[in-house]
Amino acid sequence: MSVVALQRRIISLRNNRLFEFVVIGVIIFSALVIGAKTYPIDPRALSLLGVLDLLVTLFFLFEIVVRMASEGSFKAFFTKAWNIFDFIIVAASLMPVDESEMALLGRLLRIFRVLRLVSVIPELRVMLNAFVKAIPRMGYVSLLMFIIFYIYAAIGSIFFSNINEVLWGNISIAMLTLFRVATFEDWTDVMYETMDVYPLSWIFYLSFIFIVAFVFLNMMIGIVLEVLQKEHEAFDREQGEGEAGEVHWIREHSEAMEIRLERMELMLASLVERDKERGA
Amino acid sequence: MSVVALQRRIISLRNNRLFEFVVIGVIIFSALVIGAKTYPIDPRALSLLGVLDLLVTLFFLFEIVVRMASEGSFKAFFTKAWNIFDFIIVAASLMPVDESEMALLGRLLRIFRVLRLVSVIPELRVMLNAFVKAIPRMGYVSLLMFIIFYIYAAIGSIFFSNINEVLWGNISIAMLTLFRVATFEDWTDVMYETMDVYPLSWIFYLSFIFIVAFVFLNMMIGIVLEVLQKEHEAFDREQGEGEAGEVHWIREHSEAMEIRLERMELMLASLVERDKERGA
Amino acid sequence: MSVVALQRRIISLRNNRLFEFVVIGVIIFSALVIGAKTYPIDPRALSLLGVLDLLVTLFFLFEIVVRMASEGSFKAFFTKAWNIFDFIIVAASLMPVDESEMALLGRLLRIFRVLRLVSVIPELRVMLNAFVKAIPRMGYVSLLMFIIFYIYAAIGSIFFSNINEVLWGNISIAMLTLFRVATFEDWTDVMYETMDVYPLSWIFYLSFIFIVAFVFLNMMIGIVLEVLQKEHEAFDREQGEGEAGEVHWIREHSEAMEIRLERMELMLASLVERDKERGA
Amino acid sequence: MSVVALQRRIISLRNNRLFEFVVIGVIIFSALVIGAKTYPIDPRALSLLGVLDLLVTLFFLFEIVVRMASEGSFKAFFTKAWNIFDFIIVAASLMPVDESEMALLGRLLRIFRVLRLVSVIPELRVMLNAFVKAIPRMGYVSLLMFIIFYIYAAIGSIFFSNINEVLWGNISIAMLTLFRVATFEDWTDVMYETMDVYPLSWIFYLSFIFIVAFVFLNMMIGIVLEVLQKEHEAFDREQGEGEAGEVHWIREHSEAMEIRLERMELMLASLVERDKERGA
Repeated sequence: MSVVALQRRIISLRNNRLFEFVVIGVIIFSALVIGAKTYPIDPRALSLLGVLDLLVTLFFLFEIVVRMASEGSFKAFFTKAWNIFDFIIVAASLMPVDESEMALLGRLLRIFRVLRLVSVIPELRVMLNAFVKAIPRMGYVSLLMFIIFYIYAAIGSIFFSNINEVLWGNISIAMLTLFRVATFEDWTDVMYETMDVYPLSWIFYLSFIFIVAFVFLNMMIGIVLEVLQKEHEAFDREQGEGEAGEVHWIREHSEAMEIRLERMELMLASLVERDKERGA
Repeated sequence: MSVVALQRRIISLRNNRLFEFVVIGVIIFSALVIGAKTYPIDPRALSLLGVLDLLVTLFFLFEIVVRMASEGSFKAFFTKAWNIFDFIIVAASLMPVDESEMALLGRLLRIFRVLRLVSVIPELRVMLNAFVKAIPRMGYVSLLMFIIFYIYAAIGSIFFSNINEVLWGNISIAMLTLFRVATFEDWTDVMYETMDVYPLSWIFYLSFIFIVAFVFLNMMIGIVLEVLQKEHEAFDREQGEGEAGEVHWIREHSEAMEIRLERMELMLASLVERDKERGA
Repeated sequence: MSVVALQRRIISLRNNRLFEFVVIGVIIFSALVIGAKTYPIDPRALSLLGVLDLLVTLFFLFEIVVRMASEGSFKAFFTKAWNIFDFIIVAASLMPVDESEMALLGRLLRIFRVLRLVSVIPELRVMLNAFVKAIPRMGYVSLLMFIIFYIYAAIGSIFFSNINEVLWGNISIAMLTLFRVATFEDWTDVMYETMDVYPLSWIFYLSFIFIVAFVFLNMMIGIVLEVLQKEHEAFDREQGEGEAGEVHWIREHSEAMEIRLERMELMLASLVERDKERGA
Repeated sequence: MSVVALQRRIISLRNNRLFEFVVIGVIIFSALVIGAKTYPIDPRALSLLGVLDLLVTLFFLFEIVVRMASEGSFKAFFTKAWNIFDFIIVAASLMPVDESEMALLGRLLRIFRVLRLVSVIPELRVMLNAFVKAIPRMGYVSLLMFIIFYIYAAIGSIFFSNINEVLWGNISIAMLTLFRVATFEDWTDVMYETMDVYPLSWIFYLSFIFIVAFVFLNMMIGIVLEVLQKEHEAFDREQGEGEAGEVHWIREHSEAMEIRLERMELMLASLVERDKERGA
């Protein structure tokens, strides 16, 4: 069998809907194996799980080789971010795991195999891509939030470290305590304690809660809305559906109408010209 | 009385506004009977409630027969999802309940009768239909969230099961613990416990909270906004109201204007043609 | 002084910006008096507060008479909902308060005087009007939420009343417990207790949390967005600003353009007609 | 070197990208110094930190002098709000700090230096400007929320002060307790306590939670959405992108089209006129 024929076969295999379902099935099965290992199981079942794990690893290796072959070249394969992600996950599970330290790492890597579901199911991939687009904006809001936490933590550890060393001992502990306050987890206990010494310290907590709630909610809603709206508009314009689609239609037809009007004005002008000549 | 006349009478009964209110009243009454049974009541009142319950069941049977008859055929009746729902609820309450096991099931089914309010009040039906449309999108986000929970639970039960068997014993218990963390319910107690052994485990909790809050809020807001916007636009276009309505109006009139311009250009062209002929 | 001149004077007083500020000041002062009474105060200050309270009541009486007089007729005054609200508040504080029972009622009514700030400051009035518009939609979502609470409470009190009488004793107590679960307040304690008897009861709690969070968030966001969007569009169209304003401008000018085109087509048609006649 | 040449040099320094990065670096370094001081450190390191702190202060002084000089005049410098903010921060750190009271103030002012990151990084400055625009609207909603808190706190301290002096002693304590209830922090403990005396007091808590949640969420979402939408539309119109951009394009071209049609109608009218004259 020639190489070309082989590649054609491989591509048809990759695009096969059944093959896709088998891949999804194996990923879910591998996830269940990981889950099963967290239950107490007798040694025989454990060795069986070991064998199954090996089979899953081999299947993933086979699947990634199929996709590589179907791409034609290594370069084409590695230009897609999802392929790199899959390759790392599969390559990492091939590492021999002997020592206990490495065994733990091996188990961790096996867990991340579940993430392959995201790369295999197109709808989840689209969703994650939308999240990725939101990262730059998210980065700046996170920075703003970090600055707020840092300032409040510095103030907190200066004033309150004598009151409760465990909660306000240094700036990192104080930031964790503030995160706890931000989630409303027993935050009044933290506040009442410092209010015994500084009766006005409720201003510290209330202003912090208001600012963080405002910035955080703004971040969440702002990012989600922007991503959604962009997606929505792009889809509508493409499909010519909805309000954005109609506006796009009107714009294009306005252009056509303008060209037509220009043509008509020229004709009219020539008619007027000739009419004048004749009149003269 | 002929069958047709009978059916006409039944339809007029079904469409009767008073009949509708009686149905709503009986459903509310049946809900109150269910509620009353949860209070300690003396045996005589209990037997009275039993009689009332029977009357309610008979009335529901009568009502569903009326609606069936007014539809004309069984097929027409069962093509509507709400009718199937009502039929199951009513049919299930007709089952004889003797043994204690069945009695409990019977009580449960009687509770779901309250849901019939949703099928009877049109506004609630519209609202629930909107929710149903949101299910596909919701499904994928729920899947993404489940994957996140699964990965974190696997990591948690590998590392923390030795610290607290009750919270991290196996993957299902760990997922429940993570749900607790996601609702901020005493989550710092969970975190402080593991931080004694792994001081950096706060990264585990904070990253989990951020990811879940982001995905969850995105799910909620995204779905609600999409459903709302679609509803809103569809309503506006239909009514010709609002911005979407005006855009639609402009689009349609742009089409009419284009046709008129085409006609005018043809007339102009013929004028120019004749003018040229005459000039020649 | 004639009646007309008197009324003109009263109207100019009511529209006086200074008078408005005095009214706001008196309301705030009356609120502070209410607040001061919650602190332990010596009897002399208390009798002083009593006198101040009387002065405030008289001022409010004076102010409402001014507004009544400026309206011209009682009927015109009572057609505005805010006026009725103000009248009830003022009339109620005039009631003699002798017995201790009535004294408490009098204090309560004095508290609601603070609400008069809303009726006096236009921006707050606009905001509250927007909320009022949202009530019908809110009503149906609240009904849906109540049905969900009722069903879960009925199930809960049937299964869990033997486990904890205090939390699940009857349907009303169970609904309060479910509200507590919905606010995530120590909800895991409630759940762990019932999971000892029914290990699968986590399904009950998790499904409840998901449904309520979804319905509640939908209610909040949906209502706010709808009200905001309507306000925004109406404002934009009025002002001719923003996208909605531009679309409105285009629509109106499209109409004008169409009329002009119709005129032009008629002229062209007459030209073609005459040209043909001449050609013939 | 002439003054003009010096100023040109200063401006080029201020606009230098490297200089900007150095400024950001120094701010972050100064933040780290503040954080480091919250850890227990040996005296030698402390004196080193003191020297570093002095260097940072001098650098900030140098940087602000550079920016002042590049502006040309003091007046031009102080017209920008961010410059005033920077000036106050820098000037305050120059104050001699001898007494312990002042030392604390000095440390606090050093913390606020971290806020200079916001004034230096343009993206954060844009974000904060958006927040500032939202303040007026936020002010009124905060006022509404304060009124609600005040009324509930007054009612609470009248009825519940005998039950628990610590939670409901006077109106300010009651407001803090209500804020705790609004964050769902052990609010059921507060409620169960008063329900022992007033069994219907759950109405007080539930109505409060509903109203506050509604007003608060409305405030947050409303403000964020309005600011976002305005920003988005302004950006789109400027760029001519998106739906708003297309609508703007259509509007402008509709104007051009109208002028052209007017011209064409005049020509047509003159043709008809001459034709009639000739026909006559």
